[in-house]
Amino acid sequence: MNALIYSGPNRKSLDDRPKPVITAPTDAIVKVTRTTICGTDLHILKGDVPTCTPGRILGHEGVGIVDATGAAVTAFKAGDPVLISCVSACGKCANCRRQMYSHCSTGGWILGNSIDGTQAEYVRIPHADMSLYPIPAGADEESLVMLSDILPTALECGVLNGRVQPGSTVAIVGSGPIGLAALLTAQFYSPAQIIMIDLDPGRLAVARRFGATDTIDSGDGRAAEAVMKLTAQRGVDTAIEAVGVPATFALCQQIVAAGGNIANIGVHGVKVDLHLESLWDRNISITTRLVDTVSTPMLLKTLCSHKLDPKPLITHRFKFDHILDAYEAFAHAAETHALKVLIEA
Amino acid sequence: MNALIYSGPNRKSLDDRPKPVITAPTDAIVKVTRTTICGTDLHILKGDVPTCTPGRILGHEGVGIVDATGAAVTAFKAGDPVLISCVSACGKCANCRRQMYSHCSTGGWILGNSIDGTQAEYVRIPHADMSLYPIPAGADEESLVMLSDILPTALECGVLNGRVQPGSTVAIVGSGPIGLAALLTAQFYSPAQIIMIDLDPGRLAVARRFGATDTIDSGDGRAAEAVMKLTAQRGVDTAIEAVGVPATFALCQQIVAAGGNIANIGVHGVKVDLHLESLWDRNISITTRLVDTVSTPMLLKTLCSHKLDPKPLITHRFKFDHILDAYEAFAHAAETHALKVLIEA
Amino acid sequence: MNALIYSGPNRKSLDDRPKPVITAPTDAIVKVTRTTICGTDLHILKGDVPTCTPGRILGHEGVGIVDATGAAVTAFKAGDPVLISCVSACGKCANCRRQMYSHCSTGGWILGNSIDGTQAEYVRIPHADMSLYPIPAGADEESLVMLSDILPTALECGVLNGRVQPGSTVAIVGSGPIGLAALLTAQFYSPAQIIMIDLDPGRLAVARRFGATDTIDSGDGRAAEAVMKLTAQRGVDTAIEAVGVPATFALCQQIVAAGGNIANIGVHGVKVDLHLESLWDRNISITTRLVDTVSTPMLLKTLCSHKLDPKPLITHRFKFDHILDAYEAFAHAAETHALKVLIEA
Amino acid sequence: MNALIYSGPNRKSLDDRPKPVITAPTDAIVKVTRTTICGTDLHILKGDVPTCTPGRILGHEGVGIVDATGAAVTAFKAGDPVLISCVSACGKCANCRRQMYSHCSTGGWILGNSIDGTQAEYVRIPHADMSLYPIPAGADEESLVMLSDILPTALECGVLNGRVQPGSTVAIVGSGPIGLAALLTAQFYSPAQIIMIDLDPGRLAVARRFGATDTIDSGDGRAAEAVMKLTAQRGVDTAIEAVGVPATFALCQQIVAAGGNIANIGVHGVKVDLHLESLWDRNISITTRLVDTVSTPMLLKTLCSHKLDPKPLITHRFKFDHILDAYEAFAHAAETHALKVLIEA
Repeated sequence: MNALIYSGPNRKSLDDRPKPVITAPTDAIVKVTRTTICGTDLHILKGDVPTCTPGRILGHEGVGIVDATGAAVTAFKAGDPVLISCVSACGKCANCRRQMYSHCSTGGWILGNSIDGTQAEYVRIPHADMSLYPIPAGADEESLVMLSDILPTALECGVLNGRVQPGSTVAIVGSGPIGLAALLTAQFYSPAQIIMIDLDPGRLAVARRFGATDTIDSGDGRAAEAVMKLTAQRGVDTAIEAVGVPATFALCQQIVAAGGNIANIGVHGVKVDLHLESLWDRNISITTRLVDTVSTPMLLKTLCSHKLDPKPLITHRFKFDHILDAYEAFAHAAETHALKVLIEA
Repeated sequence: MNALIYSGPNRKSLDDRPKPVITAPTDAIVKVTRTTICGTDLHILKGDVPTCTPGRILGHEGVGIVDATGAAVTAFKAGDPVLISCVSACGKCANCRRQMYSHCSTGGWILGNSIDGTQAEYVRIPHADMSLYPIPAGADEESLVMLSDILPTALECGVLNGRVQPGSTVAIVGSGPIGLAALLTAQFYSPAQIIMIDLDPGRLAVARRFGATDTIDSGDGRAAEAVMKLTAQRGVDTAIEAVGVPATFALCQQIVAAGGNIANIGVHGVKVDLHLESLWDRNISITTRLVDTVSTPMLLKTLCSHKLDPKPLITHRFKFDHILDAYEAFAHAAETHALKVLIEA
Repeated sequence: MNALIYSGPNRKSLDDRPKPVITAPTDAIVKVTRTTICGTDLHILKGDVPTCTPGRILGHEGVGIVDATGAAVTAFKAGDPVLISCVSACGKCANCRRQMYSHCSTGGWILGNSIDGTQAEYVRIPHADMSLYPIPAGADEESLVMLSDILPTALECGVLNGRVQPGSTVAIVGSGPIGLAALLTAQFYSPAQIIMIDLDPGRLAVARRFGATDTIDSGDGRAAEAVMKLTAQRGVDTAIEAVGVPATFALCQQIVAAGGNIANIGVHGVKVDLHLESLWDRNISITTRLVDTVSTPMLLKTLCSHKLDPKPLITHRFKFDHILDAYEAFAHAAETHALKVLIEA
Repeated sequence: MNALIYSGPNRKSLDDRPKPVITAPTDAIVKVTRTTICGTDLHILKGDVPTCTPGRILGHEGVGIVDATGAAVTAFKAGDPVLISCVSACGKCANCRRQMYSHCSTGGWILGNSIDGTQAEYVRIPHADMSLYPIPAGADEESLVMLSDILPTALECGVLNGRVQPGSTVAIVGSGPIGLAALLTAQFYSPAQIIMIDLDPGRLAVARRFGATDTIDSGDGRAAEAVMKLTAQRGVDTAIEAVGVPATFALCQQIVAAGGNIANIGVHGVKVDLHLESLWDRNISITTRLVDTVSTPMLLKTLCSHKLDPKPLITHRFKFDHILDAYEAFAHAAETHALKVLIEA
């Protein structure tokens, strides 16, 4: 079968690979009908993710059709249309029992990382009963691809950890795909203000269409000042970090109100400064999280009831044979204005 | 009246001052019968607290007898024995309404800081109805002095923010008075392990008497290793920082388990490193807090029902005339083995 | 001044009364510019509320202008436009400190009940700092009258106690004013389904305009069956009782899903059957509550940010001189289709 | 093998039965080394549990040794010592994903109910990975039998649902085995008062030894009055119903304080009166629950760290061959003073 292979830093290719087979009774094989590319895939390609070794099929998002199931899989059978979660979970280890599936002792984020992923014709899904979701009748499959990773990540790491509330004020630092997904899901809780901050005026324009109440171009280095002005010098109840560099985390510390929350989504490569000398008495919380995908059932319900429309996140569509073009478009988002690129079988 | 005056960095004196008078209808004047000295008082004396200017009467802890009340005080009258909270709260501003009394718009920690404090014969207490507590019949007044600041601080900033649970594992970095107060109040929730970490073997011996299940002398720089060994390489569910320097906050980051909490109590003077490059996907929370004293009613109930015995925190007793000796004993705790020093009228 | 007086069961009149005066330093006198009538006022008029004795000025809702303040009132001054809360709260008793203002030891629901109320030219408001709210610049004053009682009641007793969540299913039994207010505020949390149940097709039509996803006419006695059908035989996560009679509470028990919540808003005059023989193992919660108005700050923010539009609740408008007509319209809602009637000075 | 068989109302026998075999890849066969009898077993024997049909092997508690495992069982292997949970859980259905294992779509309380149970030499455990727990080295196996059902039931349905807090007041209505187990686990949270109420002075004496701060003999019908006196006429924060009849549920309604919780544990056979006419404005919650056994990991940790000692619950010991004697002793607790009877292989 065709598959997108990571071959070492800055090297990828579309190659032929054997179709995966069931190796444990809890496995399923899924024929991938739609997948996408994540910012994390670009990190891997830079060589920044040591758990992902050359030869790996990338990808941890997608929808498809169950092709085969192991003997212990009871929730799915061949032919079932399914959503693939980016996180595999056994459901029974100590961390799964506390719903921290991201740290499952035999799962977590392994797809397209330590095991082969979804950017291929077929993929083997471990712990299938816990890691696949039936596709509700009539659901839009393109939208569903956004439920594999980006929406639960934005909701759990950003919105839920950030405790967004009716009437509260939210700033989202970073208006890329994940920041926009946080913007979409923050609206579940009816905050009074959602301020989007980015360097790219184009992305801020998108943010306004997605429901931002205010946008700040941080190019002049005065974003903190602008947030304080918009919040009557109080700062925000929730600051969501959606970039992953020291400067954006620093901004969150400057704008969080007393009693507020900094919810980190960004993948950080280096340490940051934490200004405890000014924050020790500010009654704040800072949270980090690898998505647990515990919110996937909730997201499916909001999608089916039209409380959530993730489709505008999809800006480009490619056939799987042109996945290398999809990577080009996604990697050069500044020029292509790509948010999420959909790749169809 | 006699009062302990801060006269600028490294200068303090016992001086005569006029007895305070009621300046707002919500004020009370309290005759102080017992007070104590806080680590924060030593910070002030070093010149590290700019809100506290020379000439200030220090002290934010104590019990006493109501001497006079303003026209709007309804909960107290002259002659009532009262506990003084270190935090003054109007009860009606936006922050008080969310029970974040520490950030009251006309209160917070002001006693012995921006207004005169309790290390004197009398003290003016603003917002008296919210900032004083009736002393229950039969309660031990020495123990009650520990409820002004150190116990609610340890409980709220350390134990509650750290989400200590039955069966969970806790490490407390710093076995000084505040760390020991965290140790006492952590036991409200029946954790399985409470590991105390300090450089001073004497304080660790005290910790064992106070209920620590394990102690680690961090003098060899290998405390993190020792914690991991004690927790089967999992780390702790709750790491309480009770010192306030970069090294102890760094240790907390090394020992917190996935899904765990770092609860900061320490007063920090400089920024610290936050290792988001290793913590971004660890599902942790970090909290900071200036004590709100919302837990004071709970603490009074646990004291009266003998679920809490703070008396062993008191190691030295002085008459108010000898408060300068009390400062000496408290400031040289390494030699005197002082924890809390009680000062009586 | 003119005032609406309860003169005993089934007797009310518009009479002349002396303008109220300040009796405690925490009081304010408010000139009422807009008020309304509550279902509870009709209960009083039937003689069903023993705490309300003949001679009482009714009314516990409204907005106005501060006319005078006691010496201890610091948040308001004469001339300030204010929202009047139906609950008076001292802010400092044991119940207020836990934010259960409804059970304030010197407050709670006393306005137009045990003390004179808002259906008059002026009203005395005890504990003014805690019981009045500044009107934000530009806010619609008619809408604000809905924030005195009906919206916080619906939100706190129904939506918050009922734990409405994104994607969850909600049934509201009773589509009168309070049920519709629950419908409006439930939407803060983006549930997937909100099923309104009533005997009156007109009110169900209103409910659909207000955002109900489904409506059930319970006239045929088969509402439970209809709810089960709409929820794939699972029942609802949240059942909100918004009537106050045994039959509607019984319906809630029939339709609540395992793990769900029955949130009671209705004022009940008689006991009900609780079917523990079928509910003991269903993992449900049942809650009761007199509104605490702790959500008023949140509601003000949602109103100002246009996440909430309560104006359609107002169906009729009267001048204060015609308040007896307003009572007529409100008491005969089946014919007049009245929801809330606005009464202007 | 030998097994205790329910043969219809009021009929049981010790009979020979075939050893169970694995029927699903997620099953395990466990050799039972210790079991016990539950009040529910007596209900079954009265014919009150229609899901349990004649011919059934009773019992849903115990510890044992894994004898065989299905192909999909990964957490256990033959020879492992295990604790058997009274609730079987697949871990992956909608209810299991929200940790409501009691309502697992293919599990819940089925052992000794709709499938054969633990009062036999061997038992088949469905969903073994989720429904068995490894026995920690050195743990006391007799104590562990108390973790199958009675302790998680008391903790989850009574203490956690009842929100017991440090310094709070608790009344437990019923001082039988389940009430005493609630008394033991309530102490995890350091309440100020735990009032035990029963008709049997002997059981109240046991309660005092187990940590009750007060006991009330309800034989004179004045228990409510006695509770109000003990709580300064305030009532209790948590009322735990541990009997299951209308009179005890009525008592809970009389003694719950405003803002308090009634946590039902009792198995009710008939409806009860709910006095909404007096409770509608009291801000209370009432909860019901079939134990989910989500607290079993927590209980194992408290047991191993000696925060919990359930051994005194065991009053009688029998060999399995004498299980009919054990039933006699347990069924006539008034005479035998039996709490829990331990049955050993």
